[in-house]
Amino acid sequence: MDDTDDRAVTSRPASQRREQTRARLLHAAHLVFAEVGMDAASVEAICERAGFTRGAFYSNFESKDELFLELITQLSDAKLDAVASRVERLQPDGPIDVSELVGRLGAPFGEGIDPQLLTEIRVQAMRDPRVAEAFLGLERRVIARIQGFLEHIMSTYGMRLRIPVADAARILVDVSNETCAVAAMRGQDPDEIADALRRRLDILVVALVTEDSAHLFR
Amino acid sequence: MDDTDDRAVTSRPASQRREQTRARLLHAAHLVFAEVGMDAASVEAICERAGFTRGAFYSNFESKDELFLELITQLSDAKLDAVASRVERLQPDGPIDVSELVGRLGAPFGEGIDPQLLTEIRVQAMRDPRVAEAFLGLERRVIARIQGFLEHIMSTYGMRLRIPVADAARILVDVSNETCAVAAMRGQDPDEIADALRRRLDILVVALVTEDSAHLFR
Repeated sequence: MDDTDDRAVTSRPASQRREQTRARLLHAAHLVFAEVGMDAASVEAICERAGFTRGAFYSNFESKDELFLELITQLSDAKLDAVASRVERLQPDGPIDVSELVGRLGAPFGEGIDPQLLTEIRVQAMRDPRVAEAFLGLERRVIARIQGFLEHIMSTYGMRLRIPVADAARILVDVSNETCAVAAMRGQDPDEIADALRRRLDILVVALVTEDSAHLFR
Repeated sequence: MDDTDDRAVTSRPASQRREQTRARLLHAAHLVFAEVGMDAASVEAICERAGFTRGAFYSNFESKDELFLELITQLSDAKLDAVASRVERLQPDGPIDVSELVGRLGAPFGEGIDPQLLTEIRVQAMRDPRVAEAFLGLERRVIARIQGFLEHIMSTYGMRLRIPVADAARILVDVSNETCAVAAMRGQDPDEIADALRRRLDILVVALVTEDSAHLFR
């Protein structure tokens, strides 16, 4: 049936419909997860919420884990894209508002992604080497992009880091993840989590840059 | 029956027997967890492994979560006690072997505690405010002790930190937790996890101390 639709000028191509099916399943999974957690978010419940059959699910995703990894990847990419456009617009004029900068820089792996979702995926990654491989691949890509942001910021402002940039990027991600997780355990809402992250990263970046760079911070 | 036993000179006091029952249940829980993970480590399976009834379990622990929190607390205390005795023996003679020092310092919240157990407890803490309260209390105590170690090290060697000591302690714990979690996802064994932790913390401590303190590192 997909083949015949492709010939109609007004119909959407199969690839586009497929993307929309995946998007609806991902959105439904996000909602069901928020209500009942990942263990209880069954393929059935996700399909019912999205208005699809299990067949539609399994023609798009191999497993529930794959779907949740895709969800985290999308949320993370969207946040990193927003940071990238912010970083590209940086101008080397005057002192840097660290809160503003790191609030955006630190956000990609925290803010925007429910810390509980992230933690539950990590449990799955520890149980299943295939999930681990996908999760570690995602983390590597995130860290590589943050490393690129750091390099751009350092060269824009003429700052230097005290440790290799890859390690600085990794530490930023580590501290972001942990700060968001602890804030979530405290029952804080997304705005409070973002504030906690900004406070923590404000302090961390002072340690990461050389002392003759730190004066550039406001 | 416990009351009558207390009167016999040769019998162990009730409190001591109670401690031994708890210790056996904790040991059994650790073994069962390592085999099947926390969700599948049922109270029944733990009791069977320890050779106790469910009654014995529930007269010692309110829930499985409480038992696992107690287990993490014990493992963490044992590791922190070992670090404390090491830190007390520090002498301010010559450069500091960072790997040796931070390998021990960073260990308490990572090495010695299965990262998967820690991650699964964190999921429970995000689901259940009572588990969260207990877990956050444990983390606060761990960070306070690490803060004490850092203060002792700084004063012994005349070093200074670039950020408040409480934040430095928190960052050490964050990076330790994340490094151990990622190493576990990679399928690394405890020795490899400890090595990964040492490498990461070696780099991090350089950022945490002032530049005129960093030369003290070997």
